[in-house]
Amino acid sequence: MMSSSDTIVAAATPFGYSGVAIIRISGPQSFKIGQKLTKKPSFKPRLATLSSLYDLNDNVIDTSLLTAFKSPSSYTGENTLEISCHGNPALIAILISTICSLGARPADAGEFTFRAFINGKIDLIQAEGVASLIHAKSLENIRIQQNVVSGDFSSRIALIRNKIINLLSTLEYEMDISEEDIDPSLHKDLFDKHSDLLEELSLLANSFAMGGLLNSGIRVVITGPPNVGKSSLLNFISGTSRAIVSKAPGTTRDLVDVELLISGVPIKFIDTAGIRKSKNTVEEEGVRRALLEKKRADLVLSVSDNPSLKPKKNPDKPTLYIVNKSDLHAKTKTSKPVIHISCKKKQGLKTLISAIKKTLKLVPIHSDSVYLSTPRQNRAILSCKNSLSRASVLIKSKNLELELLSFELREAIDALDSLFGKTTPNDIINNIFSTLCVGK
Amino acid sequence: MMSSSDTIVAAATPFGYSGVAIIRISGPQSFKIGQKLTKKPSFKPRLATLSSLYDLNDNVIDTSLLTAFKSPSSYTGENTLEISCHGNPALIAILISTICSLGARPADAGEFTFRAFINGKIDLIQAEGVASLIHAKSLENIRIQQNVVSGDFSSRIALIRNKIINLLSTLEYEMDISEEDIDPSLHKDLFDKHSDLLEELSLLANSFAMGGLLNSGIRVVITGPPNVGKSSLLNFISGTSRAIVSKAPGTTRDLVDVELLISGVPIKFIDTAGIRKSKNTVEEEGVRRALLEKKRADLVLSVSDNPSLKPKKNPDKPTLYIVNKSDLHAKTKTSKPVIHISCKKKQGLKTLISAIKKTLKLVPIHSDSVYLSTPRQNRAILSCKNSLSRASVLIKSKNLELELLSFELREAIDALDSLFGKTTPNDIINNIFSTLCVGK
Repeated sequence: MMSSSDTIVAAATPFGYSGVAIIRISGPQSFKIGQKLTKKPSFKPRLATLSSLYDLNDNVIDTSLLTAFKSPSSYTGENTLEISCHGNPALIAILISTICSLGARPADAGEFTFRAFINGKIDLIQAEGVASLIHAKSLENIRIQQNVVSGDFSSRIALIRNKIINLLSTLEYEMDISEEDIDPSLHKDLFDKHSDLLEELSLLANSFAMGGLLNSGIRVVITGPPNVGKSSLLNFISGTSRAIVSKAPGTTRDLVDVELLISGVPIKFIDTAGIRKSKNTVEEEGVRRALLEKKRADLVLSVSDNPSLKPKKNPDKPTLYIVNKSDLHAKTKTSKPVIHISCKKKQGLKTLISAIKKTLKLVPIHSDSVYLSTPRQNRAILSCKNSLSRASVLIKSKNLELELLSFELREAIDALDSLFGKTTPNDIINNIFSTLCVGK
Repeated sequence: MMSSSDTIVAAATPFGYSGVAIIRISGPQSFKIGQKLTKKPSFKPRLATLSSLYDLNDNVIDTSLLTAFKSPSSYTGENTLEISCHGNPALIAILISTICSLGARPADAGEFTFRAFINGKIDLIQAEGVASLIHAKSLENIRIQQNVVSGDFSSRIALIRNKIINLLSTLEYEMDISEEDIDPSLHKDLFDKHSDLLEELSLLANSFAMGGLLNSGIRVVITGPPNVGKSSLLNFISGTSRAIVSKAPGTTRDLVDVELLISGVPIKFIDTAGIRKSKNTVEEEGVRRALLEKKRADLVLSVSDNPSLKPKKNPDKPTLYIVNKSDLHAKTKTSKPVIHISCKKKQGLKTLISAIKKTLKLVPIHSDSVYLSTPRQNRAILSCKNSLSRASVLIKSKNLELELLSFELREAIDALDSLFGKTTPNDIINNIFSTLCVGK
């Protein structure tokens, strides 16, 4: 991230033609730039004001609503100006370039939120929550991320941190005053409190299994020889006619995908070109990409139209074997690992979805629980939990080594501090903010 | 358009993942809905206020900035609430559905602007300007449409209307007081003023040639046999690799297009599948679409690689004949109507662009002039001008028939009134607003 003494500008709304677009300016020059842009002497904080916007040649670029937010009462904590202009990409480009001529520079991805973090408006967990909230695809994940952004999740972690600090204080007080063995009643208390903590951390750590899936989604790749009905399966799953279906083998050259929510988890189903030798260069490119997609898949749906299909013993990816066109085959007993469907007769989808849920371990979420969403959060909580586990071993030993125990508890606190962004290395911080869009 | 006693809601920003999205509520229930949504007792007009938004089960959906605009000081003229929430499509869908449960209904396309028109905040010319401004693709057209939206264009028309009314008043006064022939000095004055008016109207009418192109853009379709380099020409024109180029004939199945600004006019260049007989059903569909595109084209670029190409005498569309691969051919003298280019050697583009400008009559615009932008505006001005022309004939005749003249001047005024939307039939009005996006 570049210097935060700069004034930055970006569109905060998506690219497109629309009624309204928001341009955001943040930094020390925001109000001065706003004055030059509008020829107005000042802005009353938070009061939406209609004003003409002028370019450097005094031509009116647009007539817009402006709202000023005075530091520290803004998203970034800095002086901020929000311009609500007409939603026209060409107009936005001209406005941003004019604002840059007046002393701002284009914002990096996530730079507004980065400034909110730097200025102590939010911690690193909340910043991650902002990114997750914007990209959340299900009501379930939106609820989880609202808890993160609002700081509820942080408070919960802060509570755990406080409990560890209390343990540590008791311990260090004991180390200071007593040179003998630890008091048995204190030892019992330590053991109980520590067990509770460890259990809480384990619950948190386990929440990543579902929280991570809800947040990052899953890629399911449909593979198989040409003309077995891969595109038809995609259409069957999605209930639409998204993929072009034709009787000619080799129709699907480009990858076509459909995203569905199953148990709140966004699952992207990706149709691939029929994998076969081809003399056609364009089709070969399709086949190359299909193999690449298979490598990136979380689950493979291997489709065939051969009812006597024998599944591979040890596939390199979790794989469900599907026999399509079951309506054409004699009713044979379904061998367990193979799912028989008929895209044409619309049969077997329920069985397939159940099998997908089971394979991916999708379970209902509890809206009052806290879920870890990102690998970084998971790593920090695991690291904290590991320190507490090592502390457990120490506490259970007859000869309690207070210094070692104290060290492990400090390590556990450090892990939580890194979660908050207090002790997080710059490259990890930059990485978090760069996943945000420009304008946030 | 449905009843304006309803309260309407829509996202005013484009679909997508972004820092911010705007949801707009307008109508009598706006503030009541806002109170239920936020559990706040009231809103101070125009003051942006951070608030949690609750769903019907009291779960927090988002924490957003709300700004209330009290009637008549809003875009629509009604009580309006703007919610600046996180830019997440799933979140927006949940919010809008909650707001509908609280008493609003989804807005029709253009319904906010329609209400502004109904409530006398803008006239029909300005409403058209809003649609044009949002979709304007060049700085030139943005400037023109700002003049329209701000009402400058309307004032100019109102001035013309006043001049006609003044003429008419003089005339009717004359008809009242005198039963003799018209006073020669008055006749001279009438003649001069009328000539000035007619000239002004002619200038306006002529402005549609360029104003219409700036506003609606132009479709240029690239046609020709397979493998002559149609896709390469598109890439050459656009300077990118937008179209997939391959040596195998019949590569381009889907239409691929690129839009460029030439003299401020948005020109869409459309590459088509090679037009030939094909056994492949998918490719046949491509050929069918290509022929359809040619029908809709404003200009056809007919590409060949045969240097001895003879252009058709009377093509059914304005057509430029292009010989590609000029680097492979012996340097022959260019016969006038054929443009020789080499996409490979990047030669001939300047000549081609000049020929396009000349064929489409693209001329520089003057930023201080007024331009007609829509066919409706053009029809109204032409109708006004025709009435004034007929009036001219009457004024020039020796026996000035005051009643007939008065009739023509009234017709001219009616034409301008329809331009403002005062006398415009409902279906035309509905048509104008339905071209606007939902949320505007």
